[in-house]
Amino acid sequence: MEYPHPYAPADLHLPGFVPLHLTQGEILVLYLGTSLFIVFTVWFISGRCGGRLSKTDCLLMCWWAFTGLTHIIIEGTFVFAPKFFSNQNPSFFDEVWKEYSKGDSRYVARDTATVTVEGITAVLEGPASLLAVYAIASQKSYSHILQFTVCLGQLYGCLVYFVTAYLDGFNFWASPFYFWAYFIGANSSWVVIPTLIAIRSWKKICAAFQVEKVKTKHA
Amino acid sequence: MEYPHPYAPADLHLPGFVPLHLTQGEILVLYLGTSLFIVFTVWFISGRCGGRLSKTDCLLMCWWAFTGLTHIIIEGTFVFAPKFFSNQNPSFFDEVWKEYSKGDSRYVARDTATVTVEGITAVLEGPASLLAVYAIASQKSYSHILQFTVCLGQLYGCLVYFVTAYLDGFNFWASPFYFWAYFIGANSSWVVIPTLIAIRSWKKICAAFQVEKVKTKHA
Repeated sequence: MEYPHPYAPADLHLPGFVPLHLTQGEILVLYLGTSLFIVFTVWFISGRCGGRLSKTDCLLMCWWAFTGLTHIIIEGTFVFAPKFFSNQNPSFFDEVWKEYSKGDSRYVARDTATVTVEGITAVLEGPASLLAVYAIASQKSYSHILQFTVCLGQLYGCLVYFVTAYLDGFNFWASPFYFWAYFIGANSSWVVIPTLIAIRSWKKICAAFQVEKVKTKHA
Repeated sequence: MEYPHPYAPADLHLPGFVPLHLTQGEILVLYLGTSLFIVFTVWFISGRCGGRLSKTDCLLMCWWAFTGLTHIIIEGTFVFAPKFFSNQNPSFFDEVWKEYSKGDSRYVARDTATVTVEGITAVLEGPASLLAVYAIASQKSYSHILQFTVCLGQLYGCLVYFVTAYLDGFNFWASPFYFWAYFIGANSSWVVIPTLIAIRSWKKICAAFQVEKVKTKHA
């Protein structure tokens, strides 16, 4: 027998679809709980590593650890599990993507642009985010340009994600609630925070060239 | 009557398709001729503006002028002319895209990911490339980070372009010649040159932070 699916459009054909067994609340609590645990751990460790790091740097390390692990573990699972919706013994990650697909059925329908953006995010931006944690901690000279690079990748990915949704008909959510909560809400952090970090890194980089210029003049 | 089209797959439906009236040679000569004229003009002007600018900077200005105008004029025309293949009085740009589509029929078929990448390239990276010409000429402190930004956008765009082609079946060229000449050949400059410039800018930025560090230490 075939189970009906909760996604839009209703005529989307998903052979072997296995209904969700976790509730929205259970998924959210597990994801946000684990994320908060990671953020607090990084905050605690970065604070203990001496007063070399500013509060902003400690906060940035928390963000990069959180976003890097989300890219690699959550988004990586989606990229490399094309049949997640029909898994008879679904993992937590299969459940995450079955739930999120209520806000964007292109995930469950395996839309090319969506898989491509998620693939680039998981494979390139995930590891680069974790490298950013290390770069900030060890105050590497490439710290700002690395953070800027990952932010730009995240922003380009979001732009492709939203523009392709618009061009393809903008009708991939099960209801306005899922549109606002998942499609807009869940993604908004990856628009706002990378924008803020990119602006900060841009300014720091320009300032470094100002210093270099002044130094060259006085040399 | 409906004209047959030269694109792959053969069952692609293009209502009102108007056959090419320019040859490959005519299109190439006009595009490369105009591009060479622009490059030489920029080279000449940047060289005259005094010895402040290095040879590399003059070369970079030529590249940014060429790529910026290509993004805005050539790619912009594609983005905002969805029916270019059925234009009864085709412009030069319609002819360019009808010819290029032999190497990638997703252009003539208006594939979403392709239109999205070209849209971002034309609207954001085009003007930013021209700003890079100005930034290099006036030795702005944001020159390297701006060039790096555009390069990263171009590379992300190419990655999306190639990965979506692969995931969608990798069968969009009329023959191996068009695959190598257009799909690979014509795009390769936008992989190789942005990679080289991005590496250069990355190194310059890291070096600026080294200088800042040394200066702070000695202060």
